[in-house]
Amino acid sequence: MKRTAIGIDIGGTAIKFGVISDAGKVLHHFSRITEASPASISGIIQEGVKAILDSNKQRNWRIEHIGIASPGAVDIDSGIIFGASPNIPGWSGTNLKRIVGIFGYPSYADNDANAACLGEMKVGAGKGFRQILFVTIGTGVGGGIVINGNIYRGANFGAAEIGHAIIRPGGRRCGCGNRGCMEKYASVTGMIATAKQILSRRRKGKLWRAIRANLANLTPEIITAEFRNGDPVAIEIIESQAEALSQGVAGALNLLNPEVLIIGGAISEAGTGYIKAISNAIIGKTFPAATEKLKIIPARLGGRAGMVGAAYLGWILPAN
Amino acid sequence: MKRTAIGIDIGGTAIKFGVISDAGKVLHHFSRITEASPASISGIIQEGVKAILDSNKQRNWRIEHIGIASPGAVDIDSGIIFGASPNIPGWSGTNLKRIVGIFGYPSYADNDANAACLGEMKVGAGKGFRQILFVTIGTGVGGGIVINGNIYRGANFGAAEIGHAIIRPGGRRCGCGNRGCMEKYASVTGMIATAKQILSRRRKGKLWRAIRANLANLTPEIITAEFRNGDPVAIEIIESQAEALSQGVAGALNLLNPEVLIIGGAISEAGTGYIKAISNAIIGKTFPAATEKLKIIPARLGGRAGMVGAAYLGWILPAN
Repeated sequence: MKRTAIGIDIGGTAIKFGVISDAGKVLHHFSRITEASPASISGIIQEGVKAILDSNKQRNWRIEHIGIASPGAVDIDSGIIFGASPNIPGWSGTNLKRIVGIFGYPSYADNDANAACLGEMKVGAGKGFRQILFVTIGTGVGGGIVINGNIYRGANFGAAEIGHAIIRPGGRRCGCGNRGCMEKYASVTGMIATAKQILSRRRKGKLWRAIRANLANLTPEIITAEFRNGDPVAIEIIESQAEALSQGVAGALNLLNPEVLIIGGAISEAGTGYIKAISNAIIGKTFPAATEKLKIIPARLGGRAGMVGAAYLGWILPAN
Repeated sequence: MKRTAIGIDIGGTAIKFGVISDAGKVLHHFSRITEASPASISGIIQEGVKAILDSNKQRNWRIEHIGIASPGAVDIDSGIIFGASPNIPGWSGTNLKRIVGIFGYPSYADNDANAACLGEMKVGAGKGFRQILFVTIGTGVGGGIVINGNIYRGANFGAAEIGHAIIRPGGRRCGCGNRGCMEKYASVTGMIATAKQILSRRRKGKLWRAIRANLANLTPEIITAEFRNGDPVAIEIIESQAEALSQGVAGALNLLNPEVLIIGGAISEAGTGYIKAISNAIIGKTFPAATEKLKIIPARLGGRAGMVGAAYLGWILPAN
């Protein structure tokens, strides 16, 4: 029988479910739309797990545990979420382990960016590295830190909050209560906001035609496609995003001096041109000794990183 | 016989020598003026060690090893300094262990801020904490990171370079080659530069009288004394320094989520009012989950931290 685990990744728009082998293979996966209330989310998670367990009667997986990744700071011992998770009102205080505890499997929980970082470290771009800074660009900008081969969570499970570095004092208002946080400029939503500002002034070019002169049609995929096509406006948008990201990331690189910076999330799929834009933006912002041997590479697991990492939690954390 | 070690701290203006007991007691200490050439510095260090060893013929210390702390990134395995150390031209490439190797004792070397952090962790303000961010305000702003009770040095001994976080893009030029680094505003020299700017405009008050209307008389001690005396101009200067420091430190706190932030160096001796100014400046710049349980405290060993920490290197690092 294959050793497997169930991995669940709660995102702002979708909840992803997977059955993952201990070699990191995704054997089975599906997703459900995230609903706004904590009770509905708990219900969706329980139905999803039940569907996997029911279907397993005809399969050959030895499911060893269930792991859940969620936005917010997560106490990995108790499974309780605390701190702000602006995308899911009322989510703070939820006990993630208890949601899946009814099925009788050992259960594990972690912050979603930590889980994605773990997934990349075990079976993705981070394989073989022991000092990693992982940055994932989505609705927000999440971070994960690997120190001596282990995820670093800080004194109170609040570490790696790279998205809330203030890069524009007095700038765009952030859900965390401050202004000018890096993620308001470097996240997908931040990039779209910047794109709207730039396109309102410069109503021409390939990107402008691709969205049929309608700002509501802007998506990260369209922007990155026209960036690859060499559209000057798309290049300006991506460079502005890369500049904001690198400003927040540079301080983190000076502090952590990792072997590798792994960039995940939708924008990282813009290709080698994007990684080059990021590298250029980082040069001139970091202290030489901290970054002269640094590798900058895109993530490999795409949107599955959090789900895969959640499944891995039970294979790296002490049993409970 | 008392177990002791020799600790040496190479600073921009002075080289400090100490004989430290394994309980952290400074049994003997003296300092020499730092000269500009690497060869003179090596000579001063060797003379200092020789003086200690000679005097020990009449004493009762069992000297177990020699530890050296130096500016710059230090490879603690080889003892070689690399990367920029703008205060001592030509210092990069020096093998610190070899300088004291002639005496036949095991030798150890580390970056000066790491050593100061180690000293504070072992016998100063950091005692009992396992996750520490240490910031020391001197000619520059140095940092030290403790993770799970150990000094974290990064993948290439380049970690904890907190002073070079860019907080004012395009701002004051820094020795590292960039502009707007935090230490150009938050170090002692940065604060003096700010003080000159402010005092040139506002030529009055207690501070202005204390320097007898002569900007060349400005020292950190005078500024902090008049800050404690409530002089509005001194308060403005200190608050501007605290604002700059907190901007660089906030990103580090979000990333590391330490138990404690320890502030060392001359300015930290400005008293509880200064720690309060720093705390206020940090609030509103950090992500709540990363800092809600954070303690902010002044360092305890003062200018001896690097010397004490250098001596401790041999008691925490593998034998060589």
